[in-house]
Amino acid sequence: MEGFLISKTVFTSCELGVFDVLLKAEQPLSAEEISQAVGASLDGTQRLLAACAGLQLLIVHHDKGQVLYSNTEEARVFLTRSSPLSLCQSIQYSSRTIYLCWHYLTDAVRSGKNQYEKAFGVSSKDLFQAMYRSDEELVKFMHLMNSIWNICGKNVITAFDLSPFKVICDLGGCSGALAKQCTAVYPECTVTIFDLPKVVRMSQEHFVSVADQRISFHEGDFFKDSLPVADLYILARILHDWTDERCIKLLQRIYEACKPGGAVLLVEALLNEDGSGPLTVQLYSLNMLVQTEGRERTDAQYAALLTTAGFTNIQHCLTGKIYDAVMEIVRD
Amino acid sequence: MEGFLISKTVFTSCELGVFDVLLKAEQPLSAEEISQAVGASLDGTQRLLAACAGLQLLIVHHDKGQVLYSNTEEARVFLTRSSPLSLCQSIQYSSRTIYLCWHYLTDAVRSGKNQYEKAFGVSSKDLFQAMYRSDEELVKFMHLMNSIWNICGKNVITAFDLSPFKVICDLGGCSGALAKQCTAVYPECTVTIFDLPKVVRMSQEHFVSVADQRISFHEGDFFKDSLPVADLYILARILHDWTDERCIKLLQRIYEACKPGGAVLLVEALLNEDGSGPLTVQLYSLNMLVQTEGRERTDAQYAALLTTAGFTNIQHCLTGKIYDAVMEIVRD
Repeated sequence: MEGFLISKTVFTSCELGVFDVLLKAEQPLSAEEISQAVGASLDGTQRLLAACAGLQLLIVHHDKGQVLYSNTEEARVFLTRSSPLSLCQSIQYSSRTIYLCWHYLTDAVRSGKNQYEKAFGVSSKDLFQAMYRSDEELVKFMHLMNSIWNICGKNVITAFDLSPFKVICDLGGCSGALAKQCTAVYPECTVTIFDLPKVVRMSQEHFVSVADQRISFHEGDFFKDSLPVADLYILARILHDWTDERCIKLLQRIYEACKPGGAVLLVEALLNEDGSGPLTVQLYSLNMLVQTEGRERTDAQYAALLTTAGFTNIQHCLTGKIYDAVMEIVRD
Repeated sequence: MEGFLISKTVFTSCELGVFDVLLKAEQPLSAEEISQAVGASLDGTQRLLAACAGLQLLIVHHDKGQVLYSNTEEARVFLTRSSPLSLCQSIQYSSRTIYLCWHYLTDAVRSGKNQYEKAFGVSSKDLFQAMYRSDEELVKFMHLMNSIWNICGKNVITAFDLSPFKVICDLGGCSGALAKQCTAVYPECTVTIFDLPKVVRMSQEHFVSVADQRISFHEGDFFKDSLPVADLYILARILHDWTDERCIKLLQRIYEACKPGGAVLLVEALLNEDGSGPLTVQLYSLNMLVQTEGRERTDAQYAALLTTAGFTNIQHCLTGKIYDAVMEIVRD
């Protein structure tokens, strides 16, 4: 019942930059110093710091009658903006967008539909038009994807040996974080990021350097426009956005574009076959209900989609990371 | 980070009446049967039930290839509407009101002020006019208080022997749940519920039977109107709504109304003296920031307020219940 209090305490501390201020200070600070540095009321800051200490995100020091705070190791690694494993961007998206969508979970379960209309007053007839309803929302979403692949991209990209695939196309490749992991791990590959024109524009502006000659872009809608020729197509957290029908349509289009000996790599959080968990993925599947047209699926459900689209020789591999990623390689 | 997903999964299951349907059925039901009974989409219901099973609120039965669900003991006791220990009313208030207020926690910490304006578009200049902004909100709040005292009222009322006090006045007595606990435990006492006129009206309509001759009502604003004469004044979760200044003003008014040998009983969730916890109360203190003008306090902070108002002979007693209640008796 009180889970949302804990989420929002973490989100607010991160949004205000409490952990960044403590990282920069390199010594414990008082509530007064922190409140001034983050530009917040002393009273509110004191209560927030106390709750963070209760959550073991801050260490409390008692020094000559003064109470001082410093980051725990966990806060430093995951909750400071400059950390390579920072969750701050995910937190911003969770706090501002997902939290509000979930306010309408009851309506979502009743209707079986996402709740953009109620939460943000936008039609969700075109899902990604709703999700990318402003440049701000688009960049926030891209940062979310970026931080996810910064944390577990390497694991999903090394779960199989992808070195035989020289020409890779990352469909819905977004900020390019997974493309960068690919080029870092596999020195001979090039990656084309296929995404909607405005995503490509933002990715070029904010995320991928033009100096990176092994990463290129291709603008388009993967349901309508022709797909670039490639040895390997990556669909990372893409199918979970869509109905079975649209997944099959997309997979069929990939099957037709795919070279002989080519493959498609799916990266998704998998439900156990018997529906018994993992809890995180059960919750994510509700999140897909609230936010998208899709769902999280079991390995067998993904295999059925792939088989219907024509693929054979399906393999899978559990990685066991925070965002429990799973891959299936399908050779034609 | 995912605490809010868990909160809302529980809230929605409760709001839809999933646990009530399973209680009534007296046998495990399928997702189809549950979705029809609660009037929700099959797909949404399936995902919700899976997450509830993951949270160990439902038991999953596999019967001839069919998946069936039944309540765990915990769900039956706390999440069905008819249970004497039901949290459903608290959940409704948490889900519809508190959840939305907490969306603005960052603003609350920045400004040090509650967020009714942003969350509900109502001014919070008069706090209880904002909280009781509609009859629906008022009744929801009264149900919340009612369920809290149904669960831990007896513990707070028996933490001290209150039998010497025959005439009790429960200031801000709301739905009368604590008054009922008093008359049940102490056969010689009568209790006057002092509250705002519209609260008294609702309490008479929905909560307290006219047949209950030992409970009476007194309409008024305890900051302005004269207080009824009594041996014992109860302030249960009242002072945490207000600033130190207003608390002292209220306590002074009680001190003046109090008979010699009389007392005031405070019931609050107490913070540890060193600010180290409990976590729940640290979170509640942030909740008071978001929702009220007050805060949770330590025992010493309450004692200081009482002393300033003139009271002496302060005692306290920790009860250790869900809503960690604490009482201080102060004799004049």
